[in-house]
Amino acid sequence: MALRARALYDFNSENPGEISVKENEIVTLYSEQDIEGWLEGTNSRGARGLLPASYVEILRNDTVSSFNNNSRYANVPTGAFESFNSTPASTFSAYPALPQQQQQQQPHQGTPASDDDWDDDWDDHSSIADEPGVVGGGYRNYEGNGPSGYSISTSSMPRGAQQAKSSATVSRNLNRFSTFVKSGGEAFVLGEASGFVKDGDKICVVMGQYGPEWQENPYPFSCTIDDPTKQTKFKGMKSYISYKLTPTHTQSQVNRRYKHFDWLYARLVEKFPVISVPHIPEKQATGRFEEDFISKRRRGLIWWMNHMTSHPVLARCDVFQHFLSCSSTDEKAWKQGKRKAEKDEMVGANFFLTISTPPAPLDLQDVESRIDGFKVFSKKMDDSVIQVNATLSEFARKQIAGFKKEYQKVGQSFKYLSQAFEMDQQSYSIGLNQAIAYTGEAYEVIGDYFVEQPKQDVDPVMDLLALYQGHLTNYPDIIHVQKGALTKVKESQKHVEEGKMESQHADGIRDRCNIISFATMAEIQYFHQTRVRDFKSQMQHFLQQQISFFQKVTGKLEEALQKYDNA
Amino acid sequence: MALRARALYDFNSENPGEISVKENEIVTLYSEQDIEGWLEGTNSRGARGLLPASYVEILRNDTVSSFNNNSRYANVPTGAFESFNSTPASTFSAYPALPQQQQQQQPHQGTPASDDDWDDDWDDHSSIADEPGVVGGGYRNYEGNGPSGYSISTSSMPRGAQQAKSSATVSRNLNRFSTFVKSGGEAFVLGEASGFVKDGDKICVVMGQYGPEWQENPYPFSCTIDDPTKQTKFKGMKSYISYKLTPTHTQSQVNRRYKHFDWLYARLVEKFPVISVPHIPEKQATGRFEEDFISKRRRGLIWWMNHMTSHPVLARCDVFQHFLSCSSTDEKAWKQGKRKAEKDEMVGANFFLTISTPPAPLDLQDVESRIDGFKVFSKKMDDSVIQVNATLSEFARKQIAGFKKEYQKVGQSFKYLSQAFEMDQQSYSIGLNQAIAYTGEAYEVIGDYFVEQPKQDVDPVMDLLALYQGHLTNYPDIIHVQKGALTKVKESQKHVEEGKMESQHADGIRDRCNIISFATMAEIQYFHQTRVRDFKSQMQHFLQQQISFFQKVTGKLEEALQKYDNA
Repeated sequence: MALRARALYDFNSENPGEISVKENEIVTLYSEQDIEGWLEGTNSRGARGLLPASYVEILRNDTVSSFNNNSRYANVPTGAFESFNSTPASTFSAYPALPQQQQQQQPHQGTPASDDDWDDDWDDHSSIADEPGVVGGGYRNYEGNGPSGYSISTSSMPRGAQQAKSSATVSRNLNRFSTFVKSGGEAFVLGEASGFVKDGDKICVVMGQYGPEWQENPYPFSCTIDDPTKQTKFKGMKSYISYKLTPTHTQSQVNRRYKHFDWLYARLVEKFPVISVPHIPEKQATGRFEEDFISKRRRGLIWWMNHMTSHPVLARCDVFQHFLSCSSTDEKAWKQGKRKAEKDEMVGANFFLTISTPPAPLDLQDVESRIDGFKVFSKKMDDSVIQVNATLSEFARKQIAGFKKEYQKVGQSFKYLSQAFEMDQQSYSIGLNQAIAYTGEAYEVIGDYFVEQPKQDVDPVMDLLALYQGHLTNYPDIIHVQKGALTKVKESQKHVEEGKMESQHADGIRDRCNIISFATMAEIQYFHQTRVRDFKSQMQHFLQQQISFFQKVTGKLEEALQKYDNA
Repeated sequence: MALRARALYDFNSENPGEISVKENEIVTLYSEQDIEGWLEGTNSRGARGLLPASYVEILRNDTVSSFNNNSRYANVPTGAFESFNSTPASTFSAYPALPQQQQQQQPHQGTPASDDDWDDDWDDHSSIADEPGVVGGGYRNYEGNGPSGYSISTSSMPRGAQQAKSSATVSRNLNRFSTFVKSGGEAFVLGEASGFVKDGDKICVVMGQYGPEWQENPYPFSCTIDDPTKQTKFKGMKSYISYKLTPTHTQSQVNRRYKHFDWLYARLVEKFPVISVPHIPEKQATGRFEEDFISKRRRGLIWWMNHMTSHPVLARCDVFQHFLSCSSTDEKAWKQGKRKAEKDEMVGANFFLTISTPPAPLDLQDVESRIDGFKVFSKKMDDSVIQVNATLSEFARKQIAGFKKEYQKVGQSFKYLSQAFEMDQQSYSIGLNQAIAYTGEAYEVIGDYFVEQPKQDVDPVMDLLALYQGHLTNYPDIIHVQKGALTKVKESQKHVEEGKMESQHADGIRDRCNIISFATMAEIQYFHQTRVRDFKSQMQHFLQQQISFFQKVTGKLEEALQKYDNA
């Protein structure tokens, strides 16, 4: 019997070899074994090709019974799914489905693989795809037609909040799928988190010139990513790309593959509820070893690494340090660190336990208004980043195709003219003929300049935009957590006023909300500071490259002009 | 009864208000009175608008009876038309029909108007259109479907020559419509031209470094064309454009209208059979007073004037001097000069009488091979000029539309980004926001630079190409005349060998062919020299303007870059 799967979301093919599917479309698969997170199949229109494994659920008879096995949210009663099937804004994983037009990779937070099998041959073998029952297995009626990250966070929260208010106690949200719940934010606010915080795990928020900020990393470092090389094993049957990482603080090179980055990313997302973990570069099914793709992925990883190493919290965390410093050849040490990270208790709700704040609490009303302001800002920034991205992408495409063509056509017509002139054997025409021929060549060369240019200026800006698009899709969830905490504070105050809650209990909620607020404000502050730093340097780089380009064009034309001096 | 006309050639509308017609299509006219050489009518598809009067013949009952009246070639027996209706290469006027794609104005050689009425209100009132019977009235079965100027000259001659050879004497060509016949070349070679040549009319060909050339004008001068101004008369009811001409040798300004140029052009074409008279700028029915059109026509007239004043023969001829120097207010002097020019006897065949050559005759075989070489050259040059013209025209169009759009879109997206950033009130972001906003404006300005640029660089090259396209359409006829003369020489030699002609008679033919050859070679030499001069200076100008453009763009980007210094 053919293996069938149902598409969970629309997927529009972007590259050769991929096929498009519509939400709820039934696809025939060739195998349930994914290839780098992609499955091969035939869609309902008979097109055969690849589609992302995480976009489909495999249809089996035992789908329901296998559901919940091994799931992080296994404690959620099955009945709860029914009541929220119609909530368009509810999300089923730690991260919302991204709007199609942003073309980001879909972040996922899979269950850690139960073994340490790092010998699979796919750079970004997805552990999610191994467990199709988990990937939205029970969400067949999920109605959210790809809402943006923003609409998810803005519309789901008030709804959840209203439901919470309707009950008389500060209870758990009914919506088990809100980011506030899943991130551990709720559990922490309600005082349910507990764990032993070692001194080394302490994360400090301090008051800086512009408000709360993460305490600076006293041991700043950076890390280069060099020479992506193609490695093979099994006598060349299997190949992958290896990146050479050299952190400045260890000065010792380690080799890492994309799947290592992917694993690390999943750990970070799980651990830090209100920190925007930069997205790693997107997956690509075809052309995995093509130079352009390798170069683009490397650039993406460099941006990712720069953000990681300059982030005061992310840079210092154990799992990242393990990733940066564990010898590539010491298999045992690697596996030890890997298991330790996967068993880290200070994730989610417990992460907040590690935060130490300045003594003076924040004015939560002020925080609320600042967070609201940031929400509006980030929405507008996301819109404009999408627009700049689309515009520059089209600008690059026009230069590579249209502009090149126009300049080359001008060049060719001048060359043709010089060829016509060469048919006249008048000696006084020879210099002119040569000068026109040279002018023709110069215009053809300028056409080539246009082709080469986007790599120099547009691509780096696009890389920057991709990084920030990733951050901007993280922020709705970060805001969501803070807003959830704030709502709990308001509820508890009301309950105290109504005599339904002891003020000591409410004070605890307020204190914990204060911690979440400090962390959120510090992260927003960090976002703004890196944004200004990164956009300034990239805009300067873009302009410098554009200037060099036009100077190069001018130089070529000046060369051509000189040919006429003795013509 | 509606006034009907038949289209003599295909006409493709180029401007709003014009209508397209196919050859032989019947058109309904609103009036037989043309407007600047244009008639208003409705084509067979019901489209109403303007079409060139010279492209149609008005259908009347008396078309045939009026035919031949007032015609320059009235001595041609009617019967001759029948036998040549099927000769595709025969032309019916002094100049061949131009191929459509060249979009040149159609040169015409009308009968001089019988009165001196210069008070009509149309700049380029065509005398041809007043006499529809003359314009190919008897050529309804004319089969030449718009052959190019080149195919006319190359295919008609051998045919005519063969016919001539088949008769035993060096007689007139049977084809009364070949350029060789019409130009007077045949009559001259056969010794039929006669007239008194005044010393002042003598035109000298001398041997120069590169072969025969026109003797230099001992009194070189140039002439500026300034301030085209709109003049009105009849209390503003009628208006026209007046150009201020100031020749350097008289230093006295005269005002001339387009119709004066048009009249002069017709005189020059009639007078000089082997001189390439530069075409005057094309007519345009609509937008006659629009700035762009006036500017373009003025530029065309400047190019025309430069060629005229630098040409050793054209610059010195009486009718041109009359045009340049006769006071605009002395109506009587003007009319006198006008009548004199129209009665000039030294036109056509008699023009050759005025030429004095170096004593040593040319090697006619060498001349033949050089002329053949020039024919190939000019064909190739014409092709490449058409290509450069089309390419640059498209290049300009792309800059005005596409390039502008791309740069402005980039500018707008940067501005949008800066607006998003302005929503963040962090003080450290203000400098960056302003710099990005400025960058956005800079890109919009660069978009405008692209719009303005073609006027500076592409347009002047296009003007040059238009002038040379005109020359290149003249050369087939010039070559035709020389080749006709050469054929007569060969025929006469054969007749002498066969004892059918006295060698003295053949010597005369050879001598006169020598004169035509000297003149043709001198004109070709002049063409090459001006070509090298004009293309060199225009290519330099083009490159200089392109360089300034890219420098201006670079400057704008540098301004933008500086804004980031304190951001």
